[in-house]
Parts: sequence; structure tokens; C-alpha cells
Amino acid sequence: MKSINVGIIGFGTVGAGVAEALLKNGELIAKRMGFTPVLRRVADLDTTTDRGVKLPDGVLINDAKQLADDPEIDIVVELVGGTTFAKDIILRAIRNGKSIVTANKALLATYGQELFNEAQAHNVDIGFEASVGGGIPCIKALREGLVGNHVKSILGILNGTCNYILTKMENDHADFEEVLKAAQKNGYAEANPALDVDGIDTAHKAAVLASLAFGKFFTVKDVQTSGIRSVTITDIESAAELGYKIKLLAIIKENDGAIQLGVHPALVPVRSLLGNVSDVFNAVWVDADVVGKTMYYGRGAGRQATSSAVVADIVDLSLNIISGSKRRIPPFPQYDEYKGLMDDSNVMSRFYIRLQVQDKPGVLSKISGILGSHGISLSSVTQKESSSESVPMILLTHIAKGTEMQKAADQIAALEEVVAPPVLFRIEDAI
Amino acid sequence: MKSINVGIIGFGTVGAGVAEALLKNGELIAKRMGFTPVLRRVADLDTTTDRGVKLPDGVLINDAKQLADDPEIDIVVELVGGTTFAKDIILRAIRNGKSIVTANKALLATYGQELFNEAQAHNVDIGFEASVGGGIPCIKALREGLVGNHVKSILGILNGTCNYILTKMENDHADFEEVLKAAQKNGYAEANPALDVDGIDTAHKAAVLASLAFGKFFTVKDVQTSGIRSVTITDIESAAELGYKIKLLAIIKENDGAIQLGVHPALVPVRSLLGNVSDVFNAVWVDADVVGKTMYYGRGAGRQATSSAVVADIVDLSLNIISGSKRRIPPFPQYDEYKGLMDDSNVMSRFYIRLQVQDKPGVLSKISGILGSHGISLSSVTQKESSSESVPMILLTHIAKGTEMQKAADQIAALEEVVAPPVLFRIEDAI
Repeated sequence: MKSINVGIIGFGTVGAGVAEALLKNGELIAKRMGFTPVLRRVADLDTTTDRGVKLPDGVLINDAKQLADDPEIDIVVELVGGTTFAKDIILRAIRNGKSIVTANKALLATYGQELFNEAQAHNVDIGFEASVGGGIPCIKALREGLVGNHVKSILGILNGTCNYILTKMENDHADFEEVLKAAQKNGYAEANPALDVDGIDTAHKAAVLASLAFGKFFTVKDVQTSGIRSVTITDIESAAELGYKIKLLAIIKENDGAIQLGVHPALVPVRSLLGNVSDVFNAVWVDADVVGKTMYYGRGAGRQATSSAVVADIVDLSLNIISGSKRRIPPFPQYDEYKGLMDDSNVMSRFYIRLQVQDKPGVLSKISGILGSHGISLSSVTQKESSSESVPMILLTHIAKGTEMQKAADQIAALEEVVAPPVLFRIEDAI
Repeated sequence: MKSINVGIIGFGTVGAGVAEALLKNGELIAKRMGFTPVLRRVADLDTTTDRGVKLPDGVLINDAKQLADDPEIDIVVELVGGTTFAKDIILRAIRNGKSIVTANKALLATYGQELFNEAQAHNVDIGFEASVGGGIPCIKALREGLVGNHVKSILGILNGTCNYILTKMENDHADFEEVLKAAQKNGYAEANPALDVDGIDTAHKAAVLASLAFGKFFTVKDVQTSGIRSVTITDIESAAELGYKIKLLAIIKENDGAIQLGVHPALVPVRSLLGNVSDVFNAVWVDADVVGKTMYYGRGAGRQATSSAVVADIVDLSLNIISGSKRRIPPFPQYDEYKGLMDDSNVMSRFYIRLQVQDKPGVLSKISGILGSHGISLSSVTQKESSSESVPMILLTHIAKGTEMQKAADQIAALEEVVAPPVLFRIEDAI
């Protein structure tokens, strides 16, 4: 039986998981696919810490360059993260003729075009299933499963930390800061949570999905991004009363040939599939012209789930090497079919508006007057009786133009009866 | 640009959909994948009926054998259905060196082993993505996306007609026969609905999924099958009160190396993802050892959705032909890892029991005594006040052995206070 030599750079959480999965299920893969994946080298600066997985003697080394230069290694798996050393070592391995597997969404969403062009020049593959949706085979679904479709829209719950925090806020009736602290304490959120809670990680993944769906490279800079720090327990409970959950969504839509690309907290119906994606789970919902609506669900992060996707890529690229069909599928097809990014002023959406207003007669009349003057009509208004001086007012709009919504919000913010800046979330209910 | 010649046998609903999709999105596929899929021939006995798609002149012929023998055709797509002519024409095309795409689950679940062995002997591929889950790329997910995993269990909602009927019963508070008649009238169910409502179609698909997951051919005869005719509106409403929905599930589980394989009406939690798969939609839920729980969702049938999967297979097999890597992935890997079918007497499950009992003192005591004597304990009992002579009693059990459950049900049926045969459904709540 043929064998394929694999080298892993980065023996952290995911690196150890991939090593473990290859050692555990390598024999099964051999039975299924007719070749043996051999874990030849693992490179990490730290060669002493116990990662809970026993590597064969001599496999663990401390020199990544040695691994990338090793003529016996067929596939280099990059799991160090970041966009500097990771980029250099991948380019080095590509130039050595290695096929590459990476889970590095930040790298792809920043230097994707350069990396894929270099891979093409050297006739090697790049697998990146693990970069979006953890263990969910959503890249393969989008690139191969839906290859005969024009994608119309993608909605993604792509960050496990944010989804965990939002779920926990709902279940425990707790506010953001409190839940974040608990999540940091038990390891579900980083000490510096910005990458997750400010939506940046989701934006990286949104850029990868949009590039793949539309054949044109988008970077993280192209993604209109807002995070979940502005979501309060009032929002979650108000949304629930109206039949919605709040999720941080990657929102990717094709409108008349132009691409809308953003990350926003959004309301989804409580009885929808996306509304039932809880805790650290992820989901990618796709609407396409032939197949209609499909969804892909699973664990979006973690040692094991991510390993499953990395191993799938290792197998895919191994089969290409063995059958002499490297680049059988262009890993990132680029083609001219769409106009590029949509002018953000044209975005149409329903909105959820939270206002904090003085409890006086005539306030709603002023607010709805402002909205009406921008062509925005309301589908729902909720204001509860209270003994406080100011009370929350929750408004849901019909479809409105984003720029008009922002102008109206600015005017509403200037009203003396409005005591805090308006908070706006999208509503995605056509799912 | 290279091109691949495609021939479609069967110009019915799906055949017309595939032709339409290739004509509509062929150019997009070419941009993405670097080759042109050419619809060279479509064969059907009926060459005159308008299918709403305009084929180029000369493409439509009435002789399927001529198509299967045409040396210029690379890929033959079988969409006639049935297990006689379809089998013969596929074998003929295989022997002519054509790669095959089929959506025919009945054929695969009956003669799969023979077809795949013949394909191996002639070094051609067989694509069958459309055979399970319509447009959902679940075969690719299972075979490639989860290649590094041992599958532990699969739960599938795989028949759109059944799911439509169950959803409609719930929404309209209507009983099975009434909804079935309406479904037949508006085209959602066949005049002879047995294949769907008796679970046979789901059993075909369960056999395909189990064979793929465990590397051993199972046929429809291996599938313990019950349909949805026994589901009443009482069941749906009782389940709803207890927090469940009733779905027809393919239930495939690995237990200590042996495979449990069945199709049964089952209760799933109302807040689970499977509980939110409604109408004609399908879903395949998979639990695997590395990735954990994943789910794949979309339209399970229909002209367009099924076409999307057929086109994906055409592209996959075309890429193999173009890159000289036919059988790059064994289409149906067979290997020795599992013991085969599980002895049905060992199946463990929670059960829902519907009894019709006389409203007398001491009935519950007798029933729970019988259950207890078979080691079955109850988690819930519901019996409502009524002025009728007999009333429904709904019991939910904890985990019980299937044979003990059946023995207990037989003893309960023999009680004079029990006026109708007990109805048993599984409960699947670990999802």
C-alpha cells in the first residue's frame, strides 16, 4: 500500500489533535482510501510539554524549516496561526513542492490571493477546510457539492465563543460582561477576547466564504464588521418575546451582481434552524439558485472537531498526489462573474432598534415621524410600563435601506427624549 | 478548454432538471473548474412531451442503448428509476467504460454490490450523491468530509413526503388519512403512497448510508422498517405536550462493532435541530468519533434540488476523467471493520407507548407492573380525564431493551382493560 508522509508545524491544541486522529484512525483511512497517512514529523519550538498524545520516537523536532525542506514530506500542515511566520513557512513549503493544509483563516483573509497564486505557480494544492466552521465540511460542500449553483446568500454562525456567550446570556438571564468573565474563567473565551467578540474572527471566515462562493478575493478589510459587545440582556429578552434569537451572523449576499459582505448581530426566528444553533456550535446556511436552501452544522472549534477537517484535507490532497492529479480541483477558483463589493448604502434589511426614551407623551409619534420621513415603516413597537424615568423602546422595521436607517437613527439620537444612542441590529427572517 | 460529454437516460422530472441546470450554469462550472460539461444526448422513449426545457437540436433520442454505446459520451446519467432496465443499462454503460451518475437508491440498496464491483472491474466511477437527501451533499460529507472518523450513529429524515405529511398533521390538527388525501391531490404524495409512507424509500436510503459509513454492503432487506400509517394526531399532540415532535427516522447506530439499522417513527426534542426540519426538507445528522455531531440539511427531493446533486457528481467524475484519476476515491469502499448487523434483540432505546385503556382504577398499576417485570421503568405517564369509556394513555420509558419492550407490549395488549393494540415509537433525544 502506498503511503503519504505528513509534517505538522505547530504542536498546540489542534496540532496535537491532528496527530492523535492520524494515529488513532490512520488504519481506518487506509482501509477506506487505499493509502497510509504517515505522521513523519511534527515541528514546534516547545518539544517538552506533554500534549496528551504519544508521538513515535524522533517525530517531534523544533525546526519548522527543516520540516518544510524535508524531501520525504509530501504534505505540510500549518497550525501555528498568525500571519507572519505562518505565511513565510507556507510559502517556503510551497516552493519546495509540498501540498499545504491550513486552518488559518486570518492568513487566508489577509494574504489568500498571494498564497493561492504561489500554489498555482508551483502546482501544489492548498486545503483549508478547517479554516471555516471547524469540523463542518462546509468548504467542500460549497466548492464541490454546490458547484453547479450560483450562490445567492450565505448566513453563518461562525464563532463558537460568541455563540456560547449569547446562549449563556439567554439561559442565565445574565448580561454580556458577566458572561464574558465566566467564559474567560472556564476557557471558552481568551483573556483578550477582541478577536472573537468584536467579530474579527467571523469576518476572517466571512471573507473566505465570500471569496469561494463568488470567485474573487475578498479580504477582512472588505467586511463591514460589528461584534456582540452592544448586545444586552434586554435585547435578548425583547427578541425572545417577539419570537427571535440574537446571533452574530456573517451575512453574505449577492444583489444584482454585487456582493454584500458583513458581520452583524442579527435576529433570526426562534423556530428556524439557525435559531436552534446553540453553545459553541457553528452553522453555515446557504441559499443557491438550483438546490435552494441548505445548511451545514457542527462544532466550530476545538481540538477534535478541527482535527477532523484537517485530516479530511490531508486525505484529499494525498489522493491527488497518489492518483497524479494535483490541482484536480482549483483550490480557490478565481473568475469574473460578479461586480465586486456592493456599495454599502444600497444594503436593504429589516432592523431591530433599541431606544432608551423618557416616558413622556408624544415620543413615539416623533420617532415614527422621523422613520416615516426616511421611508421606514414599523412592524412592531414594544414599550413596557415602568416607574423609571426612562424606559427601553423596542422597534422592528419592515425592509429599509441601510443608509436611510442610519440617518433616521442619527436624527432620533438627537431628540431630547432619547437618552442613549440607538442600537441597531439586522433581522434575517427569510430562512 | 477541455470538454466532457454527458448523456442522460430518462427525461422525466429530474432528467429535465439536470438538462436545465447544465444549460443554465454550464458556463459557471467551466469558469470554476476549467472544463465544459456538454449535454450531448438525452434518451427517453417519449421524445415529444414538453418538459419546459429547450434542448439543442438532435440531443433528444429515443434509444438508451445507443446512448450507452456512444463512444463520444464520457458520463452516463441514469434517471429512469426502477431496478430492472436501470440496472441493465448501467451495466452496459459500465462495460463500455463510461462513468455513471445515478439517483437510484432502490437500485443501490438492492444491487449495489454487483454494480460497484462491476465498476471496479472496468475502472469507472459511480456517483450517487442524489440517491440520499436530494440536493444535500451528504454522501460527499460522509465519504470525504468525515473520512478520518469512525461513525457512531446517523439519524436521517430522508423522505420528503412523510415529513410533509407529519408537519401538515401537526399544523392542521388533522389525522393521517385526511392529510395523505390532500397531499395526493396537490402532488406531494403518489397515488400509491406505499413506497413513501411505509418507510421503504427511507429504508433504501438508510441502506446506502449504512453501507457507506461502515464499508460493508447492506441491502433494503437488512433494514427493520416501519412507516407512518400508525401515527395519529393524538400521538403528535401528546408528543408536543411532552416537548417532542414525531419524525420518520432512519436510525443507524454502531454498537460494540455491530450495526443497528432501522426506519421508525420516532420522537425528537422540539428544540433540537431535527425537530425543526419541517415540510419536504430532509436532514442527515451524524455523530462521529473525532468531529462529534454534525448535520446536513436541505431539500430532499424535487426537480431542482436533485439536479444540483447530479450536476455535482457529473463535475466530480469529469474532473477525474480530465486529470486522469478515475477511481481516485473508491466510490463505495468495502472493508472489514465491523461485525455486520446487530441482533435486533439487543437494540436499546427509550420508547413512547400509546395505549387505549378503559378508564378504571388499577389499570396503570397493572401496566407499570408488567413493564417493571421486564426491567422497564417509566419517565412519564399522561392520561386525561374523559367521559368516554376508553381513554388514551401515553407512557414514556427510560432506556429499555427492544425485545423486552415488545414482550411487555404483548402482555399489556392481552389485558382486558386495554382495548386496542399498543403503539410503540422510539425516542431519540441524545441529539
